[in-house]
Amino acid sequence: MAKIVIVGGGFAGLRVARELAGDARFEVTLLDRRNHHIFQPLLYQVATAALSPAEIAVPLRTTLAGATNVEVRLAEVRDVDLAGRRVVTDRGDFLYDRLVLACGATHSYFGKEEWEPVAPGLKTLEQATEIRRRVLQAFEEAENASVPELAAFHQSFVVVGAGPTGVELAGTLGEINQFSISGDFRRLSPKDTRIYLIEAGPRILPSFSEALGARARRDLESLGVEVLTGTKVLGIDDKGVDVEGARTGRIRAATVLWAAGVQASPINRRLGLALDRAGRVPVGEDLSLAGHPEVFVIGDQAHREQDGKTLPGVAPVAMQQGAFVARALRAELESRPRGVFRYRDKGQMATIGRSRAVAEVGPLRMTGWLAWMAWLFVHILYLLDFRNRFFVLLEWTWSYVSFRRGARLILSKAWRSFGDSPKAAE
Amino acid sequence: MAKIVIVGGGFAGLRVARELAGDARFEVTLLDRRNHHIFQPLLYQVATAALSPAEIAVPLRTTLAGATNVEVRLAEVRDVDLAGRRVVTDRGDFLYDRLVLACGATHSYFGKEEWEPVAPGLKTLEQATEIRRRVLQAFEEAENASVPELAAFHQSFVVVGAGPTGVELAGTLGEINQFSISGDFRRLSPKDTRIYLIEAGPRILPSFSEALGARARRDLESLGVEVLTGTKVLGIDDKGVDVEGARTGRIRAATVLWAAGVQASPINRRLGLALDRAGRVPVGEDLSLAGHPEVFVIGDQAHREQDGKTLPGVAPVAMQQGAFVARALRAELESRPRGVFRYRDKGQMATIGRSRAVAEVGPLRMTGWLAWMAWLFVHILYLLDFRNRFFVLLEWTWSYVSFRRGARLILSKAWRSFGDSPKAAE
Repeated sequence: MAKIVIVGGGFAGLRVARELAGDARFEVTLLDRRNHHIFQPLLYQVATAALSPAEIAVPLRTTLAGATNVEVRLAEVRDVDLAGRRVVTDRGDFLYDRLVLACGATHSYFGKEEWEPVAPGLKTLEQATEIRRRVLQAFEEAENASVPELAAFHQSFVVVGAGPTGVELAGTLGEINQFSISGDFRRLSPKDTRIYLIEAGPRILPSFSEALGARARRDLESLGVEVLTGTKVLGIDDKGVDVEGARTGRIRAATVLWAAGVQASPINRRLGLALDRAGRVPVGEDLSLAGHPEVFVIGDQAHREQDGKTLPGVAPVAMQQGAFVARALRAELESRPRGVFRYRDKGQMATIGRSRAVAEVGPLRMTGWLAWMAWLFVHILYLLDFRNRFFVLLEWTWSYVSFRRGARLILSKAWRSFGDSPKAAE
Repeated sequence: MAKIVIVGGGFAGLRVARELAGDARFEVTLLDRRNHHIFQPLLYQVATAALSPAEIAVPLRTTLAGATNVEVRLAEVRDVDLAGRRVVTDRGDFLYDRLVLACGATHSYFGKEEWEPVAPGLKTLEQATEIRRRVLQAFEEAENASVPELAAFHQSFVVVGAGPTGVELAGTLGEINQFSISGDFRRLSPKDTRIYLIEAGPRILPSFSEALGARARRDLESLGVEVLTGTKVLGIDDKGVDVEGARTGRIRAATVLWAAGVQASPINRRLGLALDRAGRVPVGEDLSLAGHPEVFVIGDQAHREQDGKTLPGVAPVAMQQGAFVARALRAELESRPRGVFRYRDKGQMATIGRSRAVAEVGPLRMTGWLAWMAWLFVHILYLLDFRNRFFVLLEWTWSYVSFRRGARLILSKAWRSFGDSPKAAE
């Protein structure tokens, strides 16, 4: 029986585990530091109070409940001992015959780690609820503000990076400002809100076609978002952002969100290979490590080129790679060749607030309401288990008809609320 | 125009605000340190992963969106200046013609505040999600445990205090253990789980009749809960609880939950009156302060006797008092007498896990499934806005048919996940 250790319960790792589930020839251990798989593409909706954390997350155990040959262990990986074929974690060591590394990526502040506390990124549910807290709190502060300058400061939002996540964050902020909060506040006026989307490159959604990028930009602007392309961020602090380019100088803003660079998992540094600029490790045509065919690296953690282009760090790539690795493991066991991984591009899409989106499926291009419906359909379709699908669809229907957002909660950070909970009732 | 300041957006305070909403003769300011009203009676369901925070909470602004004469301000009350008729907050002062204090209560550790970190109580959403984290984490630790003793330690839960909250917590833990986790774990067995409900008094649910208390006890025991009445807690630390009584000595347990004493808001100490043992301030027959008819104190913060019995700190009392104060304010404005507050007891109920409950409505007593349905009906009925009602009903239906719990997420405390988020992907 082959002992398979999978590190990471994201799209890539979970896919491998689910494909091998029930195949008694494999004894699978899935390691993750978290107990849940999150549906990354909808994380921004938690950050913007449209969905609750539980609606885009499933406990890893639940998704693998039936599979007796798969065991889920909560553990944080510290090192990989390639020679000894063992994964070192805070829960002890795990030996493997085959190892699948799918640890994903996190934000890169390009060496400016001090920016992180003032400009959180969006990779985990904790970060999503923290961003939600900051956004909602900002409007409260504006309502409370004694002087207009202070209100303006709290009503200013900056999103750095205009990839899909940045665009979706900025668009949703614009939507919240236009539709969700208007009636609820007595003093602040949505007209005074400023939302900036800052991108160093020449255009937003660089992975999309020129035309769609331009359309997305118009859609954002119609939601009151100021799009600043060709603009570099020089500094970030709790009072705002210093920029240079299309606009140069200081942008005062209480809330800054980071959607710019990503960095593959630091575990890559333990693999003894040269990494690319994003810290990803190069993998062969069967997604295994050079010199270590028993180790696969997939998802955002891996660097793989196809037709001269690097595969993007998106869910479809991760899922297809996961499925491939499962097939390769089976093939090996049946002494057939592993084969060669090829990514089948099913297209890409991004939403811009309420009933607007852009989508590219091969030659086909969609915008506006149609693209938005397509986006809805695809995301519902891929949402992990039935329950979440069902509830997310309901939440969306609800907020679509009611213009309200379901999860507008400001939760103080746990430690704080704990520290002062004796005063909780005040 | 009368300037009304309400402190606290719980059942009592929010009720006053909603009753006065739209009545242009009143200029109402509702102060709360949180932006949301929570449906306290269902808080334990968030703590036990059945519901998401957003499902039992509504933003205060949303519930008062239509009312232009009501303004909601996020502020933490520091002091009340009775002579100057002014409320002092971290957001500056608020002057009033009439003041309504509805700051509620929080836990009392009977002077043992050091117990709080190891035995959290259940009053806020943050505490609920923290308890959820501890409970789910405990099962994970048990699954990971290297030796049986360690597993037993992590699979042991202690609930201190056998009022409705304690009973509902213990019952739900028993239910989770029996139904929700069985399939998901490979190593731990639900049979090894120990759940203790510790009560210093002679019986559980003291506010209920003997018969119902006994029935609730049987129901709890059938769910595997060990009920220890007449048992005092001498000490609590992160390794367990020291008890004396029906059982004496040490109970080793990784998770201890506090549902024992409550203490009214410390703001009461600023009112210059003698407080009762629970720190509540005595109020007159119109719920106003002796010597300060312009100040009302209602809900868990107030001490009011009726027919020789102190009114309990429950939602119905709070809501009826809120409604009374709104009427009294109107009466005053129309120079009619305020009248005398009388609490109409509509009965009480408590659930014990899946489809079991006890209920008392006047002479009528219900148990088992019937009581549970009644409980369901009443709680759905009182859930604040339509949306939540609808979604909670769905969640319950879902978990009833699927035996699954919707919100089984272990979220690390925000500050922690922030501190180490560069490693988030590991």
